[in-house]
Amino acid sequence: MTTAPQTLDQLPTPCLVVERSLFDANVAAMSAAWPGLSLRPHVKAFKSTAIARILADAGHGGFCAATVREMEGLAAAGLGSDLLLANEVLDASRLGRLVEAGHRVTVAVDSDATIAAAAAGGVTEALIDVNVGLMRCGCDPADAGRLADTARSAGLEVRGVMGYEGHLMMASAASKPARVQASMEVLTAAHAEVGGDVVSGGGTGTYAVNRWVTELQAGSYCLLDTDYARLESPFEIAVSVLATVVSVSPRGWAVADAGLKAFGMDHGPPSWPGGGLEFVSDEHTTLLDPEGLLRVGDRVRLLPGHLDPTVARHERFWVVDGDDVIDCWPVDLRHW
Amino acid sequence: MTTAPQTLDQLPTPCLVVERSLFDANVAAMSAAWPGLSLRPHVKAFKSTAIARILADAGHGGFCAATVREMEGLAAAGLGSDLLLANEVLDASRLGRLVEAGHRVTVAVDSDATIAAAAAGGVTEALIDVNVGLMRCGCDPADAGRLADTARSAGLEVRGVMGYEGHLMMASAASKPARVQASMEVLTAAHAEVGGDVVSGGGTGTYAVNRWVTELQAGSYCLLDTDYARLESPFEIAVSVLATVVSVSPRGWAVADAGLKAFGMDHGPPSWPGGGLEFVSDEHTTLLDPEGLLRVGDRVRLLPGHLDPTVARHERFWVVDGDDVIDCWPVDLRHW
Repeated sequence: MTTAPQTLDQLPTPCLVVERSLFDANVAAMSAAWPGLSLRPHVKAFKSTAIARILADAGHGGFCAATVREMEGLAAAGLGSDLLLANEVLDASRLGRLVEAGHRVTVAVDSDATIAAAAAGGVTEALIDVNVGLMRCGCDPADAGRLADTARSAGLEVRGVMGYEGHLMMASAASKPARVQASMEVLTAAHAEVGGDVVSGGGTGTYAVNRWVTELQAGSYCLLDTDYARLESPFEIAVSVLATVVSVSPRGWAVADAGLKAFGMDHGPPSWPGGGLEFVSDEHTTLLDPEGLLRVGDRVRLLPGHLDPTVARHERFWVVDGDDVIDCWPVDLRHW
Repeated sequence: MTTAPQTLDQLPTPCLVVERSLFDANVAAMSAAWPGLSLRPHVKAFKSTAIARILADAGHGGFCAATVREMEGLAAAGLGSDLLLANEVLDASRLGRLVEAGHRVTVAVDSDATIAAAAAGGVTEALIDVNVGLMRCGCDPADAGRLADTARSAGLEVRGVMGYEGHLMMASAASKPARVQASMEVLTAAHAEVGGDVVSGGGTGTYAVNRWVTELQAGSYCLLDTDYARLESPFEIAVSVLATVVSVSPRGWAVADAGLKAFGMDHGPPSWPGGGLEFVSDEHTTLLDPEGLLRVGDRVRLLPGHLDPTVARHERFWVVDGDDVIDCWPVDLRHW
């Protein structure tokens, strides 16, 4: 119906925009720290097989997912050589079908019920998910060995352990190393009881200090967000939501056409490098413009506070090199 | 691949669930107050042509939308007899194509630029959007008459005015009537300058006190959320996000498989009628369960804090009558 956009000003708004050079620099910085399969990219952050393929081409061909849908999408894209569902499921039948189709599927288990579900669904490999301090999933560390025995009795190959120190991603730089160490010592002790080759954990916020995992589960570093940008790291914000100013008030504000349905808001509103925001509503963000610099039709870039739930609201990334649109990456791993 | 779910416990989680009897009661209560075309349902709240069709069958066949995509979807579903885009756009070409295809399309304009865009795009009817106190779109009330002249000179038929008192939706019951009156007097004065038959505005939060608009723009009342439920009204929360408990800790919490990607979080986290929440992460909500009542595999219903951005995260509503799944309504008006 219309030709593909060639330049930034031709993009329909609101939309996600990725600055390719910044994305590439982020990918390279993480690859230098965690080369090859020592990095297990977590696709929940970007939900795109196009990005996953770039990471696989950079040597990181084993992936981590948070949903069955992400697992299915990676497999369908030919990226199913080693997929980890780093999450518990009670119905593993869709995962079992991936195994049947020849993909390598490992699932996290942290209870008798999730072990039984994995076995019943036709999954053959598991990690024992160990709670290392985050108030979320993972078994009591003292129960890890028993669960591994149970899993093996149920016919599962137990590849090792997983433990996510998510509560420490934003810990202060001063306290983080010691706190991560304490958390990972819990995981290491559980690993001694469980056996297997894999100790999986970590994330963008602990990539520089976690020395205990055999594979790092990180995804946010590729694109980042304003929350992670508060940490000292080589990663830069490579993504924004492009919006058009659709209304300007003589009383000192302007309204851009990106709102609650274009952002994850759990870390607060997006940031506008040009100034402050008044509020965000369903399809609008009211920008404070006391000097009246903005005009109807102007484009603004808004930086997400939290990457993962922002990306999950969009159908695609437009990839740019300055003002040139050079690619389009579908956000094709959404939903469940 | 699988048969359609027949009962609540067969639904894949996370998912949106609508209790049909509560939805019907909400629709009936609003129809009693604003019968026929005096109600212009705002589809941004539910983003489903299935719901729009039910409302059209109840006599409310003129719709209000916030995005071009919503307009296109309504038209494609045969619901294009009188569509209002209650929002400003700089590229009206897609709206123009709807006009060409025989749908009735009206667009809000609040500036010379948006008037020019409407005319250039092939739209033929407009409302002058007047700022009535919300810090968002709408022209200076004193400018409404001039803009109407400009619009008519550009070949647009000006049907009247629109003004959204969004800042008063959650005003206290004591102050709301007088504040809405003051806001609507601004709109009425602008209407006198603009002419036309239509005075469009209002919403679920002011439906009982706004006596000045000729048509009410309300949508949230159909399904409601915990924020609107704080208001005294006949409307009840008819929607929830169904989740499965995937992990239980002996230390007093349980983890359900619905998280940030299943909710709009701008009004805070969802509510769990069974107790408190610790936090919400991408695919999980940690429920406080100090008495250890929850088991892995249990189902819980979480009530959204803000309907519109929650619905926009999902592909469908499952409609239930108690434990029976009786229908599935696609959320087919998402994105832009």
